[in-house]
Formats: sequence, C-alpha cells, structure tokens
Amino acid sequence: MEAPRTPLVVTEILREYGGIARDALMSFLPQREPKRYLYDLIADYPSRASRHMRPAICIATARAFGASVEDAIHSAISVELLHNALLVVDDIQDGSEERRGAPTLHEAHGIPLALNVGSTMSILSLVPLLANVETCGPHVALWIFERAIEVAQQCAEGQAMELGWRLDNKLDLTDDDYLSMVLRKTCSYSTMLPMRIGAMIGTRARDVADEIVRFAFLLGAAFQIQDDLLNLVGDHRRYGKELAGDLLEGKRTLLVIRLLQRCRPDERVFVAEFLGLPREHKKAADVGRVLDLMHRYDCVEAVRGFAQSLLGAATYEFESGLGHLPPSRDKEFLRGLIPWVVEQP
Amino acid sequence: MEAPRTPLVVTEILREYGGIARDALMSFLPQREPKRYLYDLIADYPSRASRHMRPAICIATARAFGASVEDAIHSAISVELLHNALLVVDDIQDGSEERRGAPTLHEAHGIPLALNVGSTMSILSLVPLLANVETCGPHVALWIFERAIEVAQQCAEGQAMELGWRLDNKLDLTDDDYLSMVLRKTCSYSTMLPMRIGAMIGTRARDVADEIVRFAFLLGAAFQIQDDLLNLVGDHRRYGKELAGDLLEGKRTLLVIRLLQRCRPDERVFVAEFLGLPREHKKAADVGRVLDLMHRYDCVEAVRGFAQSLLGAATYEFESGLGHLPPSRDKEFLRGLIPWVVEQP
Repeated sequence: MEAPRTPLVVTEILREYGGIARDALMSFLPQREPKRYLYDLIADYPSRASRHMRPAICIATARAFGASVEDAIHSAISVELLHNALLVVDDIQDGSEERRGAPTLHEAHGIPLALNVGSTMSILSLVPLLANVETCGPHVALWIFERAIEVAQQCAEGQAMELGWRLDNKLDLTDDDYLSMVLRKTCSYSTMLPMRIGAMIGTRARDVADEIVRFAFLLGAAFQIQDDLLNLVGDHRRYGKELAGDLLEGKRTLLVIRLLQRCRPDERVFVAEFLGLPREHKKAADVGRVLDLMHRYDCVEAVRGFAQSLLGAATYEFESGLGHLPPSRDKEFLRGLIPWVVEQP
Repeated sequence: MEAPRTPLVVTEILREYGGIARDALMSFLPQREPKRYLYDLIADYPSRASRHMRPAICIATARAFGASVEDAIHSAISVELLHNALLVVDDIQDGSEERRGAPTLHEAHGIPLALNVGSTMSILSLVPLLANVETCGPHVALWIFERAIEVAQQCAEGQAMELGWRLDNKLDLTDDDYLSMVLRKTCSYSTMLPMRIGAMIGTRARDVADEIVRFAFLLGAAFQIQDDLLNLVGDHRRYGKELAGDLLEGKRTLLVIRLLQRCRPDERVFVAEFLGLPREHKKAADVGRVLDLMHRYDCVEAVRGFAQSLLGAATYEFESGLGHLPPSRDKEFLRGLIPWVVEQP
C-alpha cells in the first residue's frame, strides 16, 4: 500500500497555530524571581525549535468543532507545557545528552535544578486551564482539568512500565505490551489529550466519541514508532537527539521487540546482554552489531509496515468520528496528520 | 519569655484526624498496575510513621469554621500527598540518605524510579480535589484548585532559591532572605495551604482573612526553624533523618546565616569553604568544628529566640483572625499549635 503524501495544509497550520501557541506560551511564563535558577530555565526547552504538533492539534480540533482559536489557546499552552515538562524529566531519567539540537537541561545545569524545572513545568501546565473558566464556564473547565490530571498520571504509568522493563531487562515483550506502554507514555498527552480537549471545547460536552479517541491513539502510536525509527536511522541534524540513544538507554522500542522475536538464539543472548548493560558500558561496536541484526532481520521494514497498518485503521476512525464535520482547513489538517506522522517533512 | 506548654488536645487531634487522613489517603491510592515500579512505591513514604500535621490543620480549620470532616477530607488527602511528593523530590535534589527512619526512596530504588514516583504523587495530589465539586460545588472546588496549583509553584520557587544559594555558595543572606525562602518552600504548603483550604471550605468564600494567612505563615516558619534545630541538635531515632544532614548539604538555615554574621573573618573563610564543598568532600571533623562554632557564638539560642518571637506574633494573629470563632476543640487545637511547633512532644 502506497501511503498518501502530506497535504500542504498540515505544514501551513503547524506553522500558523504553532506560532500562535508558542507566542502565547512565552507571554504566559512568569516574569519574576527566581529567574536564573527557575524561570529562565523553564523557558529553555520551549524556546528551542519544535513543531508544536500538540497545541496545533488542540486548536484545530476545537475549530473543526466550531470553536475559536481564543477558546482553545489556554489549553494549547497547557498541552505544550506538559510536553516540555515531560521532556525535561524523561531526559533526566534516561540520562539523555541532547534535546532539540542542544545539551539536555540536566547536562547543562545539573540534576537538582533540572528536576525542579521539570516539576514546576508540570504544575505550571495546569495554570492556563484555570482561564478556561472564563471562556468555557466552570463545568467544561473542570472536565478539562480532570482529563489533564488523568493524562499526567497515565504518562507516569507509561514511564514506570518502560523503566521497569529496562530494570528487569525484560525480553518477552509483545506488540500489545508496546502499544499499551505507548498509549500511556506518548499518545495520552501527545494526541489524545489535545484532541479530546479540542472536542470538549468545541462541543461543550464531557464525553468525546470513542472513534475520535481511537483516531488520536492510532496517530500517536504511529508517531512514536516513527520517532523510534528516526532515532536509529535518521539524520542527526534534523533529529536533534543523539542517534541510537534509544539503544544506549536500553529502550524497548518495537524495533527491539521485533529483533528479539526474529533473531537466532545465540544472537538473542548477545542482544539481551547488550540491552542489560548500563549505558556507559555499552560499546559502539555492539551498537553497530545490533543495528546490523535489525537490518538483517528486516525489522525496520516490519516496523514501518506496522505503523502503516495503524494509519490504515486511523483513516477509518477519522471518517467515523470526524467525517461528519463540515469541510474546513482544520478538518483537512487533522486528516492530513495521517501521512504526516510518518513523513514529517 | 517562657513559652506555654502544648495542650493535650493537640496530640489528641493529631492522632484522631491524622489517623482519618492516613486511612483515607491509603484507600485513595490506585490499586492497579504498574504496582512494583509505581504504585507500591507511591505508598512507601505515606506508610512510614509521621505526624500528619498538614491534614490535621486542614480538617481542624474547616471544622472550626463550621464544616465537617467529610467536607475537608479530600483536601486533607491532597495536602498530605503533596507533602510526600515534595519529600521524595527534595530527597533526590539534596542527596539525602534517610527519611522517617528508613532509606530515602532514591537510595532504595534509584533516581529514575524515585523521580517518576515524586512527579506522579505531585499530580496525584490534585485528584482528590476533583471530589470537592460534589461536597463544595464547582466554584469553591475551582478556588481550591487555584490555590493548590499556586502553592505547588511557590514550593518550586523556594526550592530554586535554596538550590541557587548553594550553587552560588551565597554568604551574605539575611533573616528576610531566609523567611522569604521558607515562606515558599515550607509554609506555603505546610500551614498556609491547609489552613486556607480549611477556611475556604468552612466559609465557602474565595478570600481568607490576612490574619489567618499570617498566623499560618508564622507557625510554619517557626516549625521549619525547629526542624533546622532538630537536624543539628536532635535525637536521631526520633528525628528519622541523618543528623547534620543540612550542613552536609550546605543548606542555608538560619543557624548558618547567624553563624556567618557572628563569627570572626578567618572562621568565616573556613565556614564558607566548608559550605561550598560537595557533600562527599565534607569531613566529619569539619562538621564538628562548624557545630562548635555555632555553640560558641550562641547561634542555637539566638535562633530559638527568633522562633519564639515569631510565635509571639502568631499568638497575636491567631486572636485577630480566629479569636472570634465559637469555642471548640478544633479552635483549641489551632491555638495549641503555637507551643507545639517548637515542642513537638
């Protein structure tokens, strides 16, 4: 199956709504002391180049359901701040060195300060949601709060699952395990929360159609799989993180899961030992050998195919959940995300 | 001035409301996966022996204003969870080894898992506040949310101030600097938030009298100063943390600030060098020398006297802000906290 190409409207709206959200986020950040050890550092990750997929999804969904940019802007700031908070904390937990083309926050400022920045951003991400009381009334505002808190908790569950797998050096993971982790760790806040909030703002209702939630999940899962692929076979300058960082961290990506399922028993012993080593004891030659094995067993192609099948299902869910909406650029943007999540031009 | 002795009602109510809050908190914690790497660890600190001052203040204030235990219980769980979340994260940031008589969470399980537990508890602390919609209506519930988020942010500001002072090895700090840090880092969530929420629940109003807020602040500041004293001259078994840990961590307690103000220039050079060393390079003999200097310059007595003067002001604020309330055990408990915060029998 040949995937459709990303329509122009996707990059246009990412630029347009992304810019609006970025400016709104920057004006929202507190301009007070302590600056040097807190608020300046909070502004660091959000000032680095990024695509603003999450706030764009939130605004576009709200608009596709008839609301305005103004109705959704507070929530758009919130989802982008939560995303940046999670990046700061993930980077500490994973011992990552680079983020968006520059040193991670804890590399530059040490763990204690970075940790404080991450916790503050996570709490700060809830503050813009208080402004929803004015724009959407207390009930919708509280429902959005409820979802945001639930999602932040799901992210922690996903993170605990993944950390646990690494600590246990778990080898017998399945596609379902992976999807169940990615649902919590990535999709929950990257696609499901922004789309859910957008729909709640647009419809002023607490419940969002299951089809929309499934569409968001499938989109998010394909996005994460593409991110896993880019980490291994991407272009460092565009990717902005150290290549093969996932392998050094022992992450259980779908690529690793596939390799463990497909390789010979003696190779499996090698891969298992490699994954179980602490990051600093992993040798570059062994990273290369794992990559070779992944290519030999067609893991990259298999995982690409898996992402495509998720996107096939996403197309179906889009039509069921959002197809009835009147035609609009926002609707086309949401549909256009299906090819975009794997092409990311 | 001889301080009044703690009345019996304080220990009684701490036991009574503390027990209720502890049980409610334990039944609130999610009983689902991932257990071993998340929810079991979240239950760790709250299961260790503690005095439950914060939930007891919240419940007692609500009751003193005419509300019921049931009206306040969700908020009581919330403040106790936030407290435990901050302990987990502080322990990582400070490199602390012991908490409540056992190894700290990151000593036992490593930084990545402990960090995840701390972030999750911080978010989880907001979940019980959603139940306030049922008991107090959406407006009071939202006002409490607003305060809780604001306070979590203040805690991070206080933490950033203190970490910044240590990183800069700052020596010219004043009592005002200390109080401004302690206001954010301790009082905000330990006394001011629980009392504010209690009053909001009792009065169903957004604004809480300034006298009550000042009473809570003064109580919290004296409590923190007593905690600083116990860290240096306390009984390890009762204190539950390593003694002189604050000195090893280079914390700017009022004791350190007083010593730097009072000692000779050559001693100041020694103290400054000592404070600036990383924890692992600090020698036991030098800790002993700093302690000797503190005693020689009567710092312990000076700091005790300072705490007493705060409590004198607290007595005045109590009468202005809460004196008009009808007599009750809860009112006596709140007044009785004045001697209790330094006696902690």
